[in-house]
Amino acid sequence: MGTARESTEHILLVDCRDCPGLVHAITGVLFRAGANVISNNEFVDTGTQRFFMRTSCNGLSDEASVKLEIQRLLPEGAVVQIRRALPKRVVVLVSREHHCLADLLVRHAYGELGAELLSVVSNHDNLRALADRFSVPFHHVAHGSLSREAHEDALQALIGPMAPDYIVLAKYMRILSPRFVAAWPNRIVNIHHSFLPAFVGARPYAQAFHRGVKVIGATSHFVSDQLDEGPIIAQQVIPMDHSYTPDDLARAGRDVERTVLSNTLKLLNEDRVFLCGNRTVIFD
Amino acid sequence: MGTARESTEHILLVDCRDCPGLVHAITGVLFRAGANVISNNEFVDTGTQRFFMRTSCNGLSDEASVKLEIQRLLPEGAVVQIRRALPKRVVVLVSREHHCLADLLVRHAYGELGAELLSVVSNHDNLRALADRFSVPFHHVAHGSLSREAHEDALQALIGPMAPDYIVLAKYMRILSPRFVAAWPNRIVNIHHSFLPAFVGARPYAQAFHRGVKVIGATSHFVSDQLDEGPIIAQQVIPMDHSYTPDDLARAGRDVERTVLSNTLKLLNEDRVFLCGNRTVIFD
Amino acid sequence: MGTARESTEHILLVDCRDCPGLVHAITGVLFRAGANVISNNEFVDTGTQRFFMRTSCNGLSDEASVKLEIQRLLPEGAVVQIRRALPKRVVVLVSREHHCLADLLVRHAYGELGAELLSVVSNHDNLRALADRFSVPFHHVAHGSLSREAHEDALQALIGPMAPDYIVLAKYMRILSPRFVAAWPNRIVNIHHSFLPAFVGARPYAQAFHRGVKVIGATSHFVSDQLDEGPIIAQQVIPMDHSYTPDDLARAGRDVERTVLSNTLKLLNEDRVFLCGNRTVIFD
Amino acid sequence: MGTARESTEHILLVDCRDCPGLVHAITGVLFRAGANVISNNEFVDTGTQRFFMRTSCNGLSDEASVKLEIQRLLPEGAVVQIRRALPKRVVVLVSREHHCLADLLVRHAYGELGAELLSVVSNHDNLRALADRFSVPFHHVAHGSLSREAHEDALQALIGPMAPDYIVLAKYMRILSPRFVAAWPNRIVNIHHSFLPAFVGARPYAQAFHRGVKVIGATSHFVSDQLDEGPIIAQQVIPMDHSYTPDDLARAGRDVERTVLSNTLKLLNEDRVFLCGNRTVIFD
Repeated sequence: MGTARESTEHILLVDCRDCPGLVHAITGVLFRAGANVISNNEFVDTGTQRFFMRTSCNGLSDEASVKLEIQRLLPEGAVVQIRRALPKRVVVLVSREHHCLADLLVRHAYGELGAELLSVVSNHDNLRALADRFSVPFHHVAHGSLSREAHEDALQALIGPMAPDYIVLAKYMRILSPRFVAAWPNRIVNIHHSFLPAFVGARPYAQAFHRGVKVIGATSHFVSDQLDEGPIIAQQVIPMDHSYTPDDLARAGRDVERTVLSNTLKLLNEDRVFLCGNRTVIFD
Repeated sequence: MGTARESTEHILLVDCRDCPGLVHAITGVLFRAGANVISNNEFVDTGTQRFFMRTSCNGLSDEASVKLEIQRLLPEGAVVQIRRALPKRVVVLVSREHHCLADLLVRHAYGELGAELLSVVSNHDNLRALADRFSVPFHHVAHGSLSREAHEDALQALIGPMAPDYIVLAKYMRILSPRFVAAWPNRIVNIHHSFLPAFVGARPYAQAFHRGVKVIGATSHFVSDQLDEGPIIAQQVIPMDHSYTPDDLARAGRDVERTVLSNTLKLLNEDRVFLCGNRTVIFD
Repeated sequence: MGTARESTEHILLVDCRDCPGLVHAITGVLFRAGANVISNNEFVDTGTQRFFMRTSCNGLSDEASVKLEIQRLLPEGAVVQIRRALPKRVVVLVSREHHCLADLLVRHAYGELGAELLSVVSNHDNLRALADRFSVPFHHVAHGSLSREAHEDALQALIGPMAPDYIVLAKYMRILSPRFVAAWPNRIVNIHHSFLPAFVGARPYAQAFHRGVKVIGATSHFVSDQLDEGPIIAQQVIPMDHSYTPDDLARAGRDVERTVLSNTLKLLNEDRVFLCGNRTVIFD
Repeated sequence: MGTARESTEHILLVDCRDCPGLVHAITGVLFRAGANVISNNEFVDTGTQRFFMRTSCNGLSDEASVKLEIQRLLPEGAVVQIRRALPKRVVVLVSREHHCLADLLVRHAYGELGAELLSVVSNHDNLRALADRFSVPFHHVAHGSLSREAHEDALQALIGPMAPDYIVLAKYMRILSPRFVAAWPNRIVNIHHSFLPAFVGARPYAQAFHRGVKVIGATSHFVSDQLDEGPIIAQQVIPMDHSYTPDDLARAGRDVERTVLSNTLKLLNEDRVFLCGNRTVIFD
């Protein structure tokens, strides 16, 4: 897990077809550019023969030409990114439950979240006071009389200009349409209150109670067109027993949900998450 | 978790409709019979209003009359059992994988299993040498040319006379027919290599790999007519990451499977598992 | 784990020398008094031959006479308590770290803590704004020029009149004198940032780093005269690796600390914790 | 966690002072030598400014010259090793407890241990039958009338000619002298039945019981001159409660001990463990 990040830190991210000599070629460019590598992770997914690399370094001056030179050395179709190690800009969508939002707000207030919370947006108004306590802007976009399409247009009109890196669904209980999801490809992250793929859909704690499971959990994932089917980022579970009512399960689960969500934001904020088909490669 | 059991120990098990005064009434019978209570557990399932109680005691002499007297005090339909705290008699069904069987054999050989292994029965012959090492009888019931029905008849003909308390499927890879299951109601226990209800059915590790989950697990459950849908007894998970191939998942999962299975046998052996609809109540 | 508590709920707590017939005798008194038992837990510590029982029930009207009658039936020296199931009244002592306090404040604000936070008291002033955000009184009792004795006198003068059930040290970094501890016997609870008895005393994360451990954890315990030696209530750990700096350990540990602390308050609030010498018996 | 290893796999291990360009330099040598990198891990310990790298690759033909060339490019004092990915040769020392040994023998018998078990050596004779079941040579070196020195001379005379890569203490209950330890520097691995540094020394489960901990665990570590103070390789814990007697703790702990030990052997077998002072760097 990461060292504290200095303002001069850059993150290089590479995703390309695997072939011999990639690490040598890439580190050569960095070396010649005078970059000082802080940490380096590589992985080859044998099934798809794709190569993933994340390098954090200091002292990189001419990002554009370094990126170009690396790109030139890699196989066709390679995706190369060089990012300043800056906090990701995040908009949080919530409905009525406070626990994940409260956790994000506290961490944000004390500089522990990594990410910058631009705004909290909700289809309800009950969490306004909570956001106010931490001086983060709160927007109520009621869905009352609106069609799904109109409601999402209102969300988009509000969120679009903020230009967030990620939209985080911190217990946002409405399903987003494929159209909205397509506008933010791989940039919407959800926390689902079950260890997916168990208990897809609504009321997972009630489902878990009736199935009589002995563990419950939470899953963070990128949002895709398929409900609860997007690439999984993080999961965690806790043990249960027969004495837990559905309400007890929900209460216990809330602690797991917020832990998984804040761990996920930390990973995203540090650019540690790659997509590999419907799976994620995570350098932690 | 249990104290070592003395030969004079009895276990009282009660499952009945809840009503006031049950604990007082039941413990009164035990007290007057001169029984010395070692431990006592009760639970009321609020959804079904059923009362469950497990009491272990010493010094109980006239079991039959104690049982009768307790039965007389309880609501109609109450199930009362008084059992000597003796090792359960178990037949193990396996296919080709050794890891769960080896674990059971080692624990059995050193008196740690609790249960008594009567016999190992397999539809393959490759684990015979393993059973032989530990001097537990091994029976190969090939399914080669047999219909499912004929194969299960052969199994039944072999196992029936052994009169086991439980049939343990320690990686038995064939689906048992409702007819066979009905012959052993709530007495067949399976270890499934996923955290159910995720990844029901065949090849759960391959399913887990393709879904990109970050935890894998194992589940023990009673076998019912519905594949992988019977009441869950125990579950455990371990964390995964992107670097695990399906083979790596299977290898890591084997350790969880055998742990869950031996924990399950311990619970069954100590009469700590009650059924409550499709859920279990477990006093551990 | 607990059912939601109704306002008419009472908790009976018994701690006495073990002898035959205790459960029958105690439940008999409750039955005759018309109490409806919700849940019941008993445990006999075989080493000390002590009997512990916790019973929650509804419909208990004459507490005083029930208590007297139970007391009369039990061995000499028995401790019998009957408590209304009301939130415990808690004063929180903190120093400069916000994470445990923030967690308590959020849960308190949303009615999830169980306990009632009377006040936050600190030897520093930096957390005042946090308490203010949640409208919980904050008191700064600086220790600057004061002797330990004088500082603790000031604390006692402030806290005494609040008459809390528990004083919770939510990262209070000063050692309390035996005199102060004696004034609140078994009513001061501390969260220590290691899995005790590993890393007693100051800077446990630095100690953990230098020892190269692969797990870190947190421990809640009653405060006794011996530093970090009081009876342990709850412990939890998380895995570590070589890449964690002492700062990373501290950051990761904070999540465990607050989880352990809030779990501990839940247990105390529901009267689920008994003392048995320097050990605890916990009915959860 | 590792892919299955092919017979043509080599492992390159580098441990040296950190300086810019190391990864580029090392991967350049491998690239020019025609090696195909399978996986690559690097870590810089910021405290000591040491660089660690583990690279597994195929197609490396001239190991000696590759090693020489890499050595030439690295800072003075660099330790470079190139190893064939072959099973480590292991001698197991045991006393009277069977559970860790049984686990190693089962895994060995089914090709899952990675390591090759050369021999089991014990100061008692009771585990001979177990080793015999799995056809692994067993040697009884009684310490009865011998001085510690004479007993260790006998051990050394027996083990020395086997030339093991590692001596694994799988519940060997005698303390080894500094003289013996010095003969096998960083090549003796112990499993200790507590989460060190808690409960150093004898009878950790009894210690854990009396301290009233809520978790117990196991620790594998290299053996050094200081009892239970050597570098930690792996640790794992499980939750406990008040109902566990010392015997129950020991029984539950045995499952953790054998899991930690077999995980440790897997790490050692795949050359994933580096020493960094009294800490370990582990690429898993």
